[in-house]
Amino acid sequence: MTDTVLPLKGIIPPLVTPLLGRDEIDVDGTRRLVDHVIEGGVHGLFILGTSGEAPSLSHKTQQEFIQIACEQIQGRVPVLVGITDTSMTESIEFAKFSQSCGADAVVLATPYYFPMHQQDLKRYIEEMAAELPLPFLLYNMPSHTKVSYEIGTIESLMKLEKFIGVKDSSADMLYYNKLIELKSERENFTVLVGPEELMAQSVLMGGDGGISGGANLAPSLYVSLYEAAVTEDLREVHRLQHQVLRLSKSLYEVGAAPTGYLAGIKTALGFTGLCSDRLCEPLYEMPEERKQVIHQHMSDLGLFESMRTEGIASQGIKKKSNS
Amino acid sequence: MTDTVLPLKGIIPPLVTPLLGRDEIDVDGTRRLVDHVIEGGVHGLFILGTSGEAPSLSHKTQQEFIQIACEQIQGRVPVLVGITDTSMTESIEFAKFSQSCGADAVVLATPYYFPMHQQDLKRYIEEMAAELPLPFLLYNMPSHTKVSYEIGTIESLMKLEKFIGVKDSSADMLYYNKLIELKSERENFTVLVGPEELMAQSVLMGGDGGISGGANLAPSLYVSLYEAAVTEDLREVHRLQHQVLRLSKSLYEVGAAPTGYLAGIKTALGFTGLCSDRLCEPLYEMPEERKQVIHQHMSDLGLFESMRTEGIASQGIKKKSNS
Amino acid sequence: MTDTVLPLKGIIPPLVTPLLGRDEIDVDGTRRLVDHVIEGGVHGLFILGTSGEAPSLSHKTQQEFIQIACEQIQGRVPVLVGITDTSMTESIEFAKFSQSCGADAVVLATPYYFPMHQQDLKRYIEEMAAELPLPFLLYNMPSHTKVSYEIGTIESLMKLEKFIGVKDSSADMLYYNKLIELKSERENFTVLVGPEELMAQSVLMGGDGGISGGANLAPSLYVSLYEAAVTEDLREVHRLQHQVLRLSKSLYEVGAAPTGYLAGIKTALGFTGLCSDRLCEPLYEMPEERKQVIHQHMSDLGLFESMRTEGIASQGIKKKSNS
Amino acid sequence: MTDTVLPLKGIIPPLVTPLLGRDEIDVDGTRRLVDHVIEGGVHGLFILGTSGEAPSLSHKTQQEFIQIACEQIQGRVPVLVGITDTSMTESIEFAKFSQSCGADAVVLATPYYFPMHQQDLKRYIEEMAAELPLPFLLYNMPSHTKVSYEIGTIESLMKLEKFIGVKDSSADMLYYNKLIELKSERENFTVLVGPEELMAQSVLMGGDGGISGGANLAPSLYVSLYEAAVTEDLREVHRLQHQVLRLSKSLYEVGAAPTGYLAGIKTALGFTGLCSDRLCEPLYEMPEERKQVIHQHMSDLGLFESMRTEGIASQGIKKKSNS
Repeated sequence: MTDTVLPLKGIIPPLVTPLLGRDEIDVDGTRRLVDHVIEGGVHGLFILGTSGEAPSLSHKTQQEFIQIACEQIQGRVPVLVGITDTSMTESIEFAKFSQSCGADAVVLATPYYFPMHQQDLKRYIEEMAAELPLPFLLYNMPSHTKVSYEIGTIESLMKLEKFIGVKDSSADMLYYNKLIELKSERENFTVLVGPEELMAQSVLMGGDGGISGGANLAPSLYVSLYEAAVTEDLREVHRLQHQVLRLSKSLYEVGAAPTGYLAGIKTALGFTGLCSDRLCEPLYEMPEERKQVIHQHMSDLGLFESMRTEGIASQGIKKKSNS
Repeated sequence: MTDTVLPLKGIIPPLVTPLLGRDEIDVDGTRRLVDHVIEGGVHGLFILGTSGEAPSLSHKTQQEFIQIACEQIQGRVPVLVGITDTSMTESIEFAKFSQSCGADAVVLATPYYFPMHQQDLKRYIEEMAAELPLPFLLYNMPSHTKVSYEIGTIESLMKLEKFIGVKDSSADMLYYNKLIELKSERENFTVLVGPEELMAQSVLMGGDGGISGGANLAPSLYVSLYEAAVTEDLREVHRLQHQVLRLSKSLYEVGAAPTGYLAGIKTALGFTGLCSDRLCEPLYEMPEERKQVIHQHMSDLGLFESMRTEGIASQGIKKKSNS
Repeated sequence: MTDTVLPLKGIIPPLVTPLLGRDEIDVDGTRRLVDHVIEGGVHGLFILGTSGEAPSLSHKTQQEFIQIACEQIQGRVPVLVGITDTSMTESIEFAKFSQSCGADAVVLATPYYFPMHQQDLKRYIEEMAAELPLPFLLYNMPSHTKVSYEIGTIESLMKLEKFIGVKDSSADMLYYNKLIELKSERENFTVLVGPEELMAQSVLMGGDGGISGGANLAPSLYVSLYEAAVTEDLREVHRLQHQVLRLSKSLYEVGAAPTGYLAGIKTALGFTGLCSDRLCEPLYEMPEERKQVIHQHMSDLGLFESMRTEGIASQGIKKKSNS
Repeated sequence: MTDTVLPLKGIIPPLVTPLLGRDEIDVDGTRRLVDHVIEGGVHGLFILGTSGEAPSLSHKTQQEFIQIACEQIQGRVPVLVGITDTSMTESIEFAKFSQSCGADAVVLATPYYFPMHQQDLKRYIEEMAAELPLPFLLYNMPSHTKVSYEIGTIESLMKLEKFIGVKDSSADMLYYNKLIELKSERENFTVLVGPEELMAQSVLMGGDGGISGGANLAPSLYVSLYEAAVTEDLREVHRLQHQVLRLSKSLYEVGAAPTGYLAGIKTALGFTGLCSDRLCEPLYEMPEERKQVIHQHMSDLGLFESMRTEGIASQGIKKKSNS
């Protein structure tokens, strides 16, 4: 990544990993999805994060996906690759492979099996950083990794040149506000927020943008909301924020699974015809009746219409599966 | 595993993985450690669990360790191999490899990245079971995996023939008591407890034994306590339990790391000369002054003496590192 | 309490508070319940604990209940009174009132609104102890109070003469084992366990008995189990423990309320005719269909029969409410 | 409260309770503090909340404080009184007493001893509402009460006329955003945020203001930030937000107590001479050396100067206690 693209800014969707079977990538779906979000105006792509179900994919499949995605993106936007693993050796391998495929940066959550203290975490990142061939962002995701990057830890790691920013998915805005305060300590340091429902307010308070999962489906909605926030058009922010919350409520909370967001996004993508809706074990697709609720909600939200207008999925809007 | 060894019973240490460097196995140390615990009277061995730091090792190193350990054990006791991974494909690969090395059973904690509901967990285990070439135990470890095997889930999985038991490391004896109740539903179903401090009472209440980490260091202590419980000699149980609690307090609680147990065991093993004390990233060895506290506590506990008496580590008691 | 009854030992039921309406004590029910448990052989009584719904009762009603219960007990067994409150002043008032009614000791959980550090907790207990007119037990109940009495805190408070023991309801046997270790530091120090499902094993390991909620209903079952454990009759322990677990599963887990235990006990007591089944707000009685499940389970467990045999509730077994 | 003041808006400080000794109110300090915040421009006052240490005060003292505060406020701004208690009877008594003293509304967190399900919580609030003589806000404070008012519960309670708003101290902006969505369902429904660090963004997103603890000390700072947000002056929001975060970091995080915020505020108020810095048991004042850190930070923040300028505490700026 050349310094001219730093700091990273805007909407950087955490790309889902389209699958046809267990550890079998939906290659055509991946190509269509990549094009869809880039044409929707996003400012970068983050592959193999939580939304990408990276930990559930075999190492071989992860590598395959890095290759396909980078190839399809073709440098149109910066590519970030998740390399989080419980093994340092494997993380470094992923980083090297990502570089060889043309990725711009890597993204690193804490190792997610052992609990650990911040001083060990700091040492871990320092040792890792010394071996990484690319700039990296830290990814704060305590709900899944159990361990947070505490503010003091991040502050002390900012002396590492390759460390170019943080993606915070804690949904803890007290924490996020402190990250924003850290931005004054170094140039070109990016602070991105995970939950899309918090993206607008994070930008209004000085944040740089969002890794918004819903942007897999409706990239232009999130891009527009981001721009409204950047241009301080609060009326437009409120209007679009209401749409974001409606989409979130309609698609992510059908059924009670803790991973309802992921199932909702993939189910909805399936209905658009962009790619398969298959999830990777240990997650499973939702029952047919819930899928139909999602379909209905998509209609109510005008998602099919807006996609047709954008001409993106025009070749293949999938029929309702029960018809 | 032939049915004659079922149900598994007794003390089955979760073997640590001796390391010389990152992803570099201490092969000689491994051989000495295996002999040490078998000569100490243990009833089986469990490799590549939490104590074995499996998630921190590269896949290649895990396979190497399976090979070395099985080779050294040579069928003297049953061998259980941890195959837990966040990817189902990788878990199945590990199971197949374990079988090829002569392992007797595999052990499976829940996938540890995504939170999930019990019905998805049940389906996951059923699908996995269909592809496993060996009998398996489920390993309940919510402090590290975030997800428990609930009692109802275990009960419904008991119809799977390959499912031969549970290792419970939740330290929740309300849960453990319910596991014991399940034993009446099927023959040869094993219920083992993780925390060594709870092993005696679990056996007194009808449990089958323990995956006691301290048995890496002092196998005969845990074997004796197990036998006292089995023979209902409560006076001896109290005497040995006091020793177990003293060892636990002296070695596992030096420093405040959440993984103090693991650092304590490896440090102590290092001092015995059995094997290297190196931990695998993201865990790091304790500072020298804490190591010396461990050394002192080992002296106070008479651990050096008892080892000499047993003649086990006689070739190479390591000098105090500051001498 | 004269020193001759120290240390407290055995089964000390946490008496429920029978109610006819909001803040209206079921006086006759209270008298019958007190007699029922004492005739069932219990070794003491603990009133106004969690099972006694003390925090939900007005201060006036709590005082009224202390008076009625002490009057009915008439010194037949030691009486312990819960004085936990978020206000130190109120706790001390309750203690003075308890003394005036003839109580033998008071029981003190941590204040349950503010989180706090152990050193503040220690100071709090020391200041309180200086003003308490009676010996006291500490009551470890982190699921409800959020704050634990850590082992080090308890150890340092053992220098206080009035501090005569601990009731541990954490269900954490690692913690409980450490409490047992503390007993060697002082004479007449009692370590009682809360969850009845853990009572037997706690006694086998050296504990003093249980504050067993089920003993409101079936006091002799818990007394027999306690005696089997004290006399090291493991076969009898297993037989009775199975009954305790069955009772627990049948009565406490009907419906999914986090306070199912309390609703189950009170509903069951209602069916015996001993006292009203009303709970105090914010807890509410269970729906009629669940009550009928409880009634069926009571029949299955032979509880009605055993009560008749003991002649205890013979005057007034309530009819099934749907008949 | 007349409908003309609804919905509540702006900065409504959660008044601390100045104390001279255990359960002894600092009456003069209370009068000065009330005047200080009202002269600082606040839009209302909330007494006997968490910052008011209500649960730690005896019932008698709480009533005394209601009386003194209402008397001093003299209707200059709306007065909200916290009536949260674990006993419904006591809560209702507090509400009646508040009305008799001229309070405008009462504030109700969930009962904080027993965990409970939402349907029981809903019933509890409905029953309570029927007996409350004043409009009420619900106070979401799960870190202290363990139980949240879930969005669905709040939505279903909005049919109650007396229910005029929510104070959310969860610091969960995903939740808060949903509260803002609920505002469209009813006129004059207020959504206030607890943590002062989140006040600005909550107002930018459509919220009504904050129960900002720091406004005890520096009311005009929070009032100015609120106004900047309301008038969409983002540059000013960022400037003042930085000051708020600096104050928060400087005063609330000295020492590691979980209640550092409360100790920090009271210590700082003590240094201004407005009122005593005594906390109510089980909270204790910080050690002298930490107090001096607070004093230094107050100087660095220019707090003494700004107070002199505002002429508020001019009669009695307390000397540094070590001088």
